[in-house]
Amino acid sequence: MADLRLPALRWAEPPEGPVLVLLDQTRLPAEEAELVCTDVPGLVAAIQSLAVRGAPLLGIAGAYGVALAAVRGYDVTEAARQLAEARPTAVNLAYGVGRARDAYRSAGGDGAAAARAALAEARALHREDAQGSERMAGAGLGLLSELLPGGGYRLLTHCNTGALISGAHGTAFAVVRAAHLAGELRRLWVDETRPLLQGARLTAYEAAREGMPYAVLPDAAAGSLFAAGEVDAVLIGADRIAADGSVANKIGSYPLAVLAKHHGVPFIVVAPVSTVDLATRDGAAIQIEHRPGQEVTEVRPGVPVAPVGAQAYNPAFDVTPPELVTAIVTERGVVAPVDHGNLTNVCSETRSSESGTGSGMMKA
Amino acid sequence: MADLRLPALRWAEPPEGPVLVLLDQTRLPAEEAELVCTDVPGLVAAIQSLAVRGAPLLGIAGAYGVALAAVRGYDVTEAARQLAEARPTAVNLAYGVGRARDAYRSAGGDGAAAARAALAEARALHREDAQGSERMAGAGLGLLSELLPGGGYRLLTHCNTGALISGAHGTAFAVVRAAHLAGELRRLWVDETRPLLQGARLTAYEAAREGMPYAVLPDAAAGSLFAAGEVDAVLIGADRIAADGSVANKIGSYPLAVLAKHHGVPFIVVAPVSTVDLATRDGAAIQIEHRPGQEVTEVRPGVPVAPVGAQAYNPAFDVTPPELVTAIVTERGVVAPVDHGNLTNVCSETRSSESGTGSGMMKA
Repeated sequence: MADLRLPALRWAEPPEGPVLVLLDQTRLPAEEAELVCTDVPGLVAAIQSLAVRGAPLLGIAGAYGVALAAVRGYDVTEAARQLAEARPTAVNLAYGVGRARDAYRSAGGDGAAAARAALAEARALHREDAQGSERMAGAGLGLLSELLPGGGYRLLTHCNTGALISGAHGTAFAVVRAAHLAGELRRLWVDETRPLLQGARLTAYEAAREGMPYAVLPDAAAGSLFAAGEVDAVLIGADRIAADGSVANKIGSYPLAVLAKHHGVPFIVVAPVSTVDLATRDGAAIQIEHRPGQEVTEVRPGVPVAPVGAQAYNPAFDVTPPELVTAIVTERGVVAPVDHGNLTNVCSETRSSESGTGSGMMKA
Repeated sequence: MADLRLPALRWAEPPEGPVLVLLDQTRLPAEEAELVCTDVPGLVAAIQSLAVRGAPLLGIAGAYGVALAAVRGYDVTEAARQLAEARPTAVNLAYGVGRARDAYRSAGGDGAAAARAALAEARALHREDAQGSERMAGAGLGLLSELLPGGGYRLLTHCNTGALISGAHGTAFAVVRAAHLAGELRRLWVDETRPLLQGARLTAYEAAREGMPYAVLPDAAAGSLFAAGEVDAVLIGADRIAADGSVANKIGSYPLAVLAKHHGVPFIVVAPVSTVDLATRDGAAIQIEHRPGQEVTEVRPGVPVAPVGAQAYNPAFDVTPPELVTAIVTERGVVAPVDHGNLTNVCSETRSSESGTGSGMMKA
């Protein structure tokens, strides 16, 4: 977060009562404006409009949302339900909500002590996310140095996975940043990520602030880069990873995986273990959010690009099957090959193992 | 052209002198406005701003441009040079310019008779394009019925290949239209085609006017459609086809070809024989136009989506190798498999064979 002038999310306690303050990501990069949530409906609206977004940050926001309800004396069970259902695909949201709600219940389920417990749990999750981000960065950089011993990486990323979605430097972008700090980032290719342009708007913004050598491209121009041998690895985040290793991530991830396979380029997913959902059996079982067609037919609200009344197909996510994923980098190490056994192992490790240097399937 | 209120291009002779009138495609679908070219620099600017675009139409526009120079008494050799170089990738432009210039020279290279010959040649090319479009539609529909005997096609297309780029109904879109008229179009998937959104702006506009069942999608959402089995065939146009069968077309075509291959879906190119350039040996020899980064960093002039100063990668075209192309549909029949021998044969056929029902490599 230190690299953004304003953090993506912060808890504040002004005299008029506790609030959750969000950096309104829909207004970036034109302006850095904060959005103050005083209640759960306000936070749900912010989640649905993507003012706050990104799988890990959604988890943190969900936990703080439960804390907000508890501290302000609203119905915590109802608040948790509304928050968990605000968006269907990212499992981290339900995970964060569940952790704060469980802490609240364990502390009695009522009153100031329970509210303090919910807030403490949200803060713990926020802190863990930051630590996890550092570990993923280290493990990912290790993996890159193994896969690409020549150094000087040309990395391609999709959507936005950095400080804006995290308590620290994010997931895939944290690995890119580590490569940059190590002097090994030759080029970051930034998919613009239609329809909402999180790559052009947000990742380019973060890359520029970090002083990285980067260029934005139309999503469909990635093919030319692969064909020209200009991509050494693809690094993306994840919104949900099913038990078989299928990865739900921002729409446009799957075509990159197919291109990477076709060109023999590593396709690397970077995500905390909380993104793995062993209760979802496979890719077909992942619920994909479909968003309003207007996001496609207007490139910005009020800027139409298609005829009036045009229908649009606008799934927010797609699913990449495990056979197209080279590795999943988690805060507990690198999972490779990506399969049910290795995922189950990384999930079942005790939290204490997280203090190690990466105890996943593959030392990175 | 009958399906557009205004034709994409027309020659007019008002009292103040002959002009070439273009439908300004940069302003569609918001408004149907005409752009009047009175000289070659004006036409070159219109070509470069994409007010007039699409490989076949560029050829027709180039031929009329030479006629305009001849009729108005400008230097025809210089005009032909400027027009042929206005955009580098579409071979049709140089082809159309060359035909009108050669007709002018053959008729004496000076004076009213030579000018009339150039104009007659431009009109002949315009007419041939319309006839070719009808033949491609028939051959393409035949090919679809062979490849997909079940009917009820769900077709995916990229960029814009219809009446707006043609003297009639275009190339790939002419086949889609034929399928629609035959009652066999179940769905047209329209890639929006970033950065300039020719799919969302122009193809959707044409599909809506034709009453087709269609939906616009972000280019990178095509992957999900393939994965869900929702695409029966891909139909695209071409800007240049090299002697080995490599196809240069709008950026984003190549990733579709890779996806189509991965999913076993036919990938069909529809283009007149004039698009084949036997003098270009292979895909690597095709010059790819790179356009200003602003087309990516601003979704419309003045609507920025990336940080100030962001670099962008913006090639206008990509190249699909012949092994990913199921067939090339031309006005002389279907070329399949796509290889040097079959392409050479279709190119060397005499023009008289064009009156046949398709005498290419494969009867369609």
